[in-house]
Amino acid sequence: MQPELIVAGAGAGDPELITLKAYRLLQEVPVVLYDNLVNKTLLEYTKPGCENIYVGKLPYGDYTPQEQIHELIKEKAFSKGRVLRLKGGDPFIFGRGFEEILFARKHGIQTTFIPGITSMQASGLYDIPLTFRNISESIWVVTGTKKDGSLSADLQLAIQSKATVVIYMGMKKLTEIAHTYIDKGHGEMPAAIIHYASLPYHKLAKGMIKDLPRLAAEQQITHPALIIIGPVTNTDFLMEAQ
Amino acid sequence: MQPELIVAGAGAGDPELITLKAYRLLQEVPVVLYDNLVNKTLLEYTKPGCENIYVGKLPYGDYTPQEQIHELIKEKAFSKGRVLRLKGGDPFIFGRGFEEILFARKHGIQTTFIPGITSMQASGLYDIPLTFRNISESIWVVTGTKKDGSLSADLQLAIQSKATVVIYMGMKKLTEIAHTYIDKGHGEMPAAIIHYASLPYHKLAKGMIKDLPRLAAEQQITHPALIIIGPVTNTDFLMEAQ
Repeated sequence: MQPELIVAGAGAGDPELITLKAYRLLQEVPVVLYDNLVNKTLLEYTKPGCENIYVGKLPYGDYTPQEQIHELIKEKAFSKGRVLRLKGGDPFIFGRGFEEILFARKHGIQTTFIPGITSMQASGLYDIPLTFRNISESIWVVTGTKKDGSLSADLQLAIQSKATVVIYMGMKKLTEIAHTYIDKGHGEMPAAIIHYASLPYHKLAKGMIKDLPRLAAEQQITHPALIIIGPVTNTDFLMEAQ
Repeated sequence: MQPELIVAGAGAGDPELITLKAYRLLQEVPVVLYDNLVNKTLLEYTKPGCENIYVGKLPYGDYTPQEQIHELIKEKAFSKGRVLRLKGGDPFIFGRGFEEILFARKHGIQTTFIPGITSMQASGLYDIPLTFRNISESIWVVTGTKKDGSLSADLQLAIQSKATVVIYMGMKKLTEIAHTYIDKGHGEMPAAIIHYASLPYHKLAKGMIKDLPRLAAEQQITHPALIIIGPVTNTDFLMEAQ
């Protein structure tokens, strides 16, 4: 029995956004290690006797330390053969999936990677295309939560660009982000926040970036949410631009 | 019969990278309009009698004008009911998918969007995670081919950032891109080119950005290909950084 780690994306939330490949393997493996943001409906497709182990991290709260996940991968790969590590979104976009792959290989475990639909792609469900010809021809994807707690310095550069700016895990920095735009004279830039994109209980706020902290508070939009800033968030503008 | 346009991503190339949702609808619809980069294997799953119509654009070559695609959407939606517009990658990442949705709505056609795995996500199959903790915490996705033929000015900003820079449709600009990095003193930045990511006949070149035009020529790597620039393209570096 060759030990194997499969690191796969579960998609943005809607269980039907998983890839065919991840769905097929989900039905074959004896162990699944799954994250907080993985839709639990997917676990119903595992075969009888499959061990479904929760190793999620709650944002700003309790979490399974990465080292403990690594140890679990090693233990289960050698005792059960195949381990499916199912992560919300795409494991290689702010998902630390490659760290787990490097760890596994170091211990002689074969690895397979399957990408997943990440939440920014589900923004399309709310009439937000990430690019639009002649309007936005680049996308800058940043994380609002750096390890040291600071806002990415890259945001200062992103504001100067014509990119659609996408911020993951940025809700705690929303006011700071809005002020960064206001200070640069771009407070009226169209923007949006999407909470639980692609799920029935999603929440959506659209407006100028300067108003977004207020709109988010009014609708009680909290983590997990995605912040998108740029003209592509304003559908009327895109219709007129055509 | 309510006319409907479903704009769906077919994924990066490997047919198993399609989402469950797009796969399900593929089996239900009476008409599919598909692009050049859609894996033809997927068309085998359409139901008997389904019209599969090619509306692809060959890069720098013959193409179906966007207006003609729009007319076909309208004609088929009103005569057949549901039209599945299947596009390579993700329809809202350099895919003009939202233009087709806006057109359809203007004519009273109901619309549905399904995102798809875009080729940069398939870079993970070649040991390139788009982000890596403490190394690269943002991603800048640009197109190398603007409508006016110029290289995106945003690239000048991207070079100053710590972002992983991903360039779609950039092969004609590869030498210019390499020189932009060399001029800024970043010629030794690790980089990669992937041709037909996720498909059996893929090609891969990894090296310093200054050497990439030569490596691509040696391996005869042409369009369609993705250029990725940043430390995440160097696996040895990531292993040491942990």
